[in-house]
Amino acid sequence: MRASTYHLNTLKEAPSEAEVVSHQLMTRAGMIRKLAGGIYTYMPLGLKVIRKIEAIVRDEMNAAGGIELLMPVVQPAELWQESGRWVQYGAELLRIKDRHQRDFVLQPTSEEVITDIARNEIHSYRQLPLNFYHIQTKFRDERRPRFGLMRGREFTMKDAYSFDRDEASAQQSYDKMYDAYMRIFSRLGLEFRAVAADTGSIGGTRSHEFQVIADTGEDLLAYNPDSQYAANIELAEAPCLLAERAAPAQTLEATPTPGAAKCEDVAKLLGLPLERTLKSLVLATEPEPGKVQIWLLMLRGDHELNEIKAGKIPGLADFRFATESEIVEHFGCKPGYLGPIGTALPVRVVADRTVANMADFVCGANREDYHYTGANWGRDLPEPEIVADLRNVVAGDPSPDGVGHLAIQRGIEVGHVFFLGTKYSDALKATFLDETGKPATLQMGCYGIGITRIAGAAIEQNHDGRGILWPRAIAPFEVVICPVGWGKNETVRNEAVKLYDELRARGVDVILDDRDARPGVMFAEWELIGVPLRVTVGERGLNDGVVELQARRESDAVKIPVESALNKVLDKLETL
Amino acid sequence: MRASTYHLNTLKEAPSEAEVVSHQLMTRAGMIRKLAGGIYTYMPLGLKVIRKIEAIVRDEMNAAGGIELLMPVVQPAELWQESGRWVQYGAELLRIKDRHQRDFVLQPTSEEVITDIARNEIHSYRQLPLNFYHIQTKFRDERRPRFGLMRGREFTMKDAYSFDRDEASAQQSYDKMYDAYMRIFSRLGLEFRAVAADTGSIGGTRSHEFQVIADTGEDLLAYNPDSQYAANIELAEAPCLLAERAAPAQTLEATPTPGAAKCEDVAKLLGLPLERTLKSLVLATEPEPGKVQIWLLMLRGDHELNEIKAGKIPGLADFRFATESEIVEHFGCKPGYLGPIGTALPVRVVADRTVANMADFVCGANREDYHYTGANWGRDLPEPEIVADLRNVVAGDPSPDGVGHLAIQRGIEVGHVFFLGTKYSDALKATFLDETGKPATLQMGCYGIGITRIAGAAIEQNHDGRGILWPRAIAPFEVVICPVGWGKNETVRNEAVKLYDELRARGVDVILDDRDARPGVMFAEWELIGVPLRVTVGERGLNDGVVELQARRESDAVKIPVESALNKVLDKLETL
Repeated sequence: MRASTYHLNTLKEAPSEAEVVSHQLMTRAGMIRKLAGGIYTYMPLGLKVIRKIEAIVRDEMNAAGGIELLMPVVQPAELWQESGRWVQYGAELLRIKDRHQRDFVLQPTSEEVITDIARNEIHSYRQLPLNFYHIQTKFRDERRPRFGLMRGREFTMKDAYSFDRDEASAQQSYDKMYDAYMRIFSRLGLEFRAVAADTGSIGGTRSHEFQVIADTGEDLLAYNPDSQYAANIELAEAPCLLAERAAPAQTLEATPTPGAAKCEDVAKLLGLPLERTLKSLVLATEPEPGKVQIWLLMLRGDHELNEIKAGKIPGLADFRFATESEIVEHFGCKPGYLGPIGTALPVRVVADRTVANMADFVCGANREDYHYTGANWGRDLPEPEIVADLRNVVAGDPSPDGVGHLAIQRGIEVGHVFFLGTKYSDALKATFLDETGKPATLQMGCYGIGITRIAGAAIEQNHDGRGILWPRAIAPFEVVICPVGWGKNETVRNEAVKLYDELRARGVDVILDDRDARPGVMFAEWELIGVPLRVTVGERGLNDGVVELQARRESDAVKIPVESALNKVLDKLETL
Repeated sequence: MRASTYHLNTLKEAPSEAEVVSHQLMTRAGMIRKLAGGIYTYMPLGLKVIRKIEAIVRDEMNAAGGIELLMPVVQPAELWQESGRWVQYGAELLRIKDRHQRDFVLQPTSEEVITDIARNEIHSYRQLPLNFYHIQTKFRDERRPRFGLMRGREFTMKDAYSFDRDEASAQQSYDKMYDAYMRIFSRLGLEFRAVAADTGSIGGTRSHEFQVIADTGEDLLAYNPDSQYAANIELAEAPCLLAERAAPAQTLEATPTPGAAKCEDVAKLLGLPLERTLKSLVLATEPEPGKVQIWLLMLRGDHELNEIKAGKIPGLADFRFATESEIVEHFGCKPGYLGPIGTALPVRVVADRTVANMADFVCGANREDYHYTGANWGRDLPEPEIVADLRNVVAGDPSPDGVGHLAIQRGIEVGHVFFLGTKYSDALKATFLDETGKPATLQMGCYGIGITRIAGAAIEQNHDGRGILWPRAIAPFEVVICPVGWGKNETVRNEAVKLYDELRARGVDVILDDRDARPGVMFAEWELIGVPLRVTVGERGLNDGVVELQARRESDAVKIPVESALNKVLDKLETL
């Protein structure tokens, strides 16, 4: 490609709404243009990146036995009603009506359609296992789309669906996809981690997320540097930090703590470690319409509630936080001084595992500006009704696999594999005839990769002050040739074109910047765009028989003899 | 690919709703599955065809200087309001609302979005010419989707848009696309014709359609076998067939024609050639709200009205056919006996060119069961107010280019190039700074190819009683190897696998049918699917040192020595 016949349009400034670096840099580099909130045009440079990601994903999916098809963007409501997700999915599912007022959705994912295909196409166990995938436009009507390609509304996803005769075979299909994902993200050139994850609204019994490691990631990942253990913090199990509960040593006292509504303030005021305090969180559920149940969740003062874990406690599946009036009604006190001792009305108490083993603790006294000190389970209040893992793990927590301690890092979820079981095949009655000739329900897995999101995540992980640092595998171009003095020096032109032609002949994705721009402008533009390797061909260098090789990630350029430039460039590319 | 790890599912019967052969065969061959009216899943075999079509289109678009990007499926209403098409487009434009009740459309085409991109990205004449294209999912909410991929609602289109500084340059961009399209359809292996065409709702000043020749096509194409002239019958100019008007030789007489309401019946009854009769068609317009204008269009009895030509007559742009009550009111007579002589109320009369030179003609007498004979313009009634080309050309008409005569054939429109001029750039104020530094309006062209429709059209053109006859370039597989006795004969297996591996190594897209099916079943399936070349490897042949080569389009198989099978297959492929 020659730059003069391509479309490049870099910008000095990113739009003010671009909050994250990938959104800023993709816009500035001319890779995406916003059409509406969360809806972007992939400009030529951006589309090249997307296509390279797609090609790697497709290649590894095929190698793992995936069979590509293409399901429609517009899907009839009937299938979504059959699965129940027409009701469950909420406002992110964009519902539309055609000219005959029939209901359709813009697909956010394709479990329903593929299960419908499976029930029509799969008749016998002899056809199994099968793994269908497609790479297709998806739409999720995010309430607040932002972060560019990281949280768009229209985006491209690869979604695969496996069908198996039994759970053991389905586990093999799952493992095959897990392995394919490991290869995909390695080939993409990204630092990533596979972590055990919650199954969320997709459902199923187990899942792993593939997370691109980046400080700006929204997800927190807990991992054990000394073992294979890794899990999304949503799922990572937090142990009890106290081996056993100490005997009470203090007496219960209502202690004035004026204005100290937070554990940190109470600990400071009383001169106690934060680990001695208890944090009270009040939730509400409606076990039956019109009836409200209030729950008090107790965490150690330095710990944070994990809402996903809370939601898994029997009875708390659909919890919400209690309103202030509900709190006052049940505790006789406003938030900040709440505790489990002497509540105005009965509430159900859930203690975190660590809390259950605390002794002589500090908790709110259900009286404004007062906390109890020296509180003890069993003596001053009943044993907690429920003890459960309620908190996020923190760095240094013992690893759930029994070896060493957890570390925490941030990640961006770019892939997710789910063991679905029969959730969708039951709902849509997708069966096959087994070896005995009897109908059996298909065992399913589903496997997503956020194609367009990967482009954003790659930048969040790989950038510097001057622009993007694309991994070679997904860079819009692998090499840029920058001739200095294109317009006036024929030798420069000839050498640049010669190297350009040679590299193209070797299959290198190279662009020749023949726009006759000033070197500073040209270099800054290609650094912003993030091409991994630049070759500068200039009159001065050619007089000395050299051209300059500048790797985007390295600080210094190296001079290479012009006669061996091709091989030096090819060698350098191999190292990137 | 091995068939045992692929998904094949051919059907004995096509669904009853499949009216055309491509719909029937694609369904039976397992290439598409209907999800909703006009919405199909491309099954693995079908998607392979689509991808091969896309690849050829992309390759030639790139070679012609097109730059690929990707515009969203979901587009904001504002741009469509700016161009005016939000109102003009009608019910085929699927309008949707997002969760915030903002209006969007599912794109049927992308003139608005690309013009918006152009006005933001193109600043200077130095950036021109530019040609952006994308290959993307489109949606047109057809009132009655049918014919499978031929008239779907969700489909894939390649749409390109050129931007130029002036009309001469825009014409060059148009010609470049025209030439690229010629190469594309040649490479696809289809018999096709480029024809001059009407610009329709897209607008612009000139256009050509690319039509795949097929007896089942909906379009009629007029062409001159002795010259380059070719046009859609919508546009093909029909000359006056009478060099001059003869002098009246008969007297006007009201002649009883009981029950003869059609020209054919009148001619038969009176023993006159059909060419002596006049056909009367009554149209209505509303030049201002509430005011109806009635028009009488006169055609020779053997000619057919061309509604597009009629619509181009000043005043007739928005015509409709008159109602029976309007006809009775203006002619004092019910349809079947209408004519231009002595109408009850004044009507505007438009005569086809040939009609205007007729003498002693027969026309309705505006009196039930009567026609006039011996009628003559000027003598028996005023000269026609308007003389125009109103009719469809017919085979044998003199060619508009002055040489020879027209022939007619049927075609399926698969591509369309439009010279748009400034229709969209004016509406969206897309300008650039010209050489003098002054703003000028971008000249545009747009260029569509119906990717998924091509698959259907290729089958309409290429099929026989047993199934599809894919051109090699877009066949789902180029070669199928059918081992006879796969399960029990190791030599058969070894030879089949050896040839399979060799062909793959040469880049041939080959499938090995290792399902151990009976030969008859296997052959019928691959004939239905339409793979161009089959190699049968069987015990009996191997004993004689041969395998069988069967081209799908040829009636007989040929035996080829097993040791030269690879080269024979490669040679044969070259001829397909």
